[in-house]
Amino acid sequence: MALIVQKFGGTSVGSTEKIKAVARRVMKVQKQGNQMVVVLSAMAGETDRLVALANDIQRIPNRREMDMLLSTGEQVTIALFAMAVKEAGMEAISLLGDQVAIHTDNMHTRARIRNIDTGSIRKHLDSGKIVVIAGFQGVDDEGDITTLGRGGSDTTAVALAAALGADACEIFTDVDGVYTTDPNICRQARKIDKISYDEMLELASLGAKVLDIRSVGLAKRYRVPLHVRSTFSENEGTWVVEEDKIMESMLVSGITYNRNEARITIKKVPDQPGIAAKIFLPISDAGILVDMIIQNTREGHLTDMTFTVMRNDYARAMEILKQVAEDIGAESVTGDQSIVKVSIVGVGMRNHSGIASTMFQIMAKEGINIMMISTSEIKVSCVIAEKYAELAVRALHDAFALDKENLPVEEE
Amino acid sequence: MALIVQKFGGTSVGSTEKIKAVARRVMKVQKQGNQMVVVLSAMAGETDRLVALANDIQRIPNRREMDMLLSTGEQVTIALFAMAVKEAGMEAISLLGDQVAIHTDNMHTRARIRNIDTGSIRKHLDSGKIVVIAGFQGVDDEGDITTLGRGGSDTTAVALAAALGADACEIFTDVDGVYTTDPNICRQARKIDKISYDEMLELASLGAKVLDIRSVGLAKRYRVPLHVRSTFSENEGTWVVEEDKIMESMLVSGITYNRNEARITIKKVPDQPGIAAKIFLPISDAGILVDMIIQNTREGHLTDMTFTVMRNDYARAMEILKQVAEDIGAESVTGDQSIVKVSIVGVGMRNHSGIASTMFQIMAKEGINIMMISTSEIKVSCVIAEKYAELAVRALHDAFALDKENLPVEEE
Repeated sequence: MALIVQKFGGTSVGSTEKIKAVARRVMKVQKQGNQMVVVLSAMAGETDRLVALANDIQRIPNRREMDMLLSTGEQVTIALFAMAVKEAGMEAISLLGDQVAIHTDNMHTRARIRNIDTGSIRKHLDSGKIVVIAGFQGVDDEGDITTLGRGGSDTTAVALAAALGADACEIFTDVDGVYTTDPNICRQARKIDKISYDEMLELASLGAKVLDIRSVGLAKRYRVPLHVRSTFSENEGTWVVEEDKIMESMLVSGITYNRNEARITIKKVPDQPGIAAKIFLPISDAGILVDMIIQNTREGHLTDMTFTVMRNDYARAMEILKQVAEDIGAESVTGDQSIVKVSIVGVGMRNHSGIASTMFQIMAKEGINIMMISTSEIKVSCVIAEKYAELAVRALHDAFALDKENLPVEEE
Repeated sequence: MALIVQKFGGTSVGSTEKIKAVARRVMKVQKQGNQMVVVLSAMAGETDRLVALANDIQRIPNRREMDMLLSTGEQVTIALFAMAVKEAGMEAISLLGDQVAIHTDNMHTRARIRNIDTGSIRKHLDSGKIVVIAGFQGVDDEGDITTLGRGGSDTTAVALAAALGADACEIFTDVDGVYTTDPNICRQARKIDKISYDEMLELASLGAKVLDIRSVGLAKRYRVPLHVRSTFSENEGTWVVEEDKIMESMLVSGITYNRNEARITIKKVPDQPGIAAKIFLPISDAGILVDMIIQNTREGHLTDMTFTVMRNDYARAMEILKQVAEDIGAESVTGDQSIVKVSIVGVGMRNHSGIASTMFQIMAKEGINIMMISTSEIKVSCVIAEKYAELAVRALHDAFALDKENLPVEEE
């Protein structure tokens, strides 16, 4: 008998018909002899409806009250789901975040889970019930409802699986797994059967949207086997597991791209100690996140500083930096919003040199100029002109033969 | 400084615009130096929407899950209301039934309040906040959400006022108070300024819909001054208070009518001990409530038994009673669904004989035949043919001069 946590997102439970279908699917797995914990999101559209109501009332909605408001979305779904199971003659019970209890800090609208009581869940599981838990929400020390922010329901599911020592955490979504790259721009994209936590973390942080990075990090820390699969098919999806569970690693597992960044360069910055802080402190004080940073030495004691920010922070960042450039005596500030960051990810890189240079060669062959480069142990990212995004992704996918399963890594 | 509990129903908070308007109204009273506790219902239409979702999923929705589902309606309203207060620069906090906590028994969908913790409310009031509490809901010993059934938010408001020792409990609704009779059928109907708990209880039980009988009973028991008034005007409404707070009682305070009953007669019942039990036990076993019962002696050892049931129980009651009549050897069962119960209510009746006979005279003068009569200390009810409902109400209103304020009671 296995204990399985299954999480269904908003589109999977977007109507009463879909809720009934999902309930049938969960009951089938229970009947095969498993204990089932189900984590649900709000019905598709519901959160948007509630946010619109709040925005109608308060320009910047109070975070505590926002959590009070938004948490009703999941509450509706779990009640309806439990009814669907009961209508089919089986037993279920719905539980809210504070009923479980899922304890969080008090950072409303972006709370972090501290710990989870598993007593009531185990009691209900042992009595044969399907336990239906509201995703996205928890409770702080004051007894106030908190929500976990973006991707919150995935985080709830993985945290529950970790706390319960579940045999698997299955994330049901509208795609059937993690792909080697975006199938919308590369027809050869292939569903990955198994991928390591580290690779999935890089893919998620570099633009892949299928799993939230928080939940992957949590799954890695507690070694929760994660299964990303489709609500609308019975096919196996992608398992995200420990590296040693994957027999043959790929050199490159996946290729991602991110169009949400913009590039800013401050030219001829006097190269003195403390100059980086003078530039980046006003930026971080304004709540703007900086991604890549590159410093090029110029002639004499001058340097060029180039970095990327989220595209919707671009205008604000430029405004701040023009003042900064004047203050520190730099020559000018230039920027470019038409960029894309293309990345290749694979644990195979750890033991193989030459992956980055292969990437650069492919770019050169296609006539694509690389503006910025950033590497980690298992990824290489290049910033290029946005117009080359699809071309670069397809060329890399082809060059690293990602359309072929289990390309063996040649041991050096 | 007074402590005031104000309750607003679903139509009063039916849109974000209305929520803002109600928030302004509450803030104004707080600014006058009062501590404010606000009890809110779900936005108009929301409960119906949720019930429809449940009915789509389960033929007879599970009661625990129904409470889980329905309680979200009030949760949305209190969060939005607290945001509206904060947007206006004042302080508010929303609290759910289990956060207060409002402890109830575990009879889901019709729970009864056992006790209320007032600590957190007082703490927030003392820090200057408007405390916004979800009506209709509580929590049982298991930590499960319960709801209080019909009129639940009124009950929440009165129970809170009682527990807090509030100076007043104001029930805001879409009418501007309690009327001497239904203004829709009697243009002379007059708004009552003050009425006693006992009179209000009789009016509520006899068909007046403005206040739920449970909340009036609770207000009476804990001597909570109740103020029924309109959300959409600043006028004073009707105060429901202890009898000794009303200087001059009216002989008759109000006239109500109820079209929801049907009359059943069992003819020529053998008049033996235990015969009433044989008739009414099968009826109560079927969950059918009997209102008035009249037994007429006939010649010999035979009797006629006449009583009223709710009109939607009529068909079922007739079916049961035909079998009963056969079993006990009664002659026949006849029924009539076209009846109305018209009642006059007033504490003045206690010290005045002749009120009932005045009522009968008025009916006779209008040519209205009285089918059944029932009296209590402060009310007289007559069952008449339904077609005479409006005629009877207007004639009684006129005869007892209810259009005139403070008709003095002549001491006998």
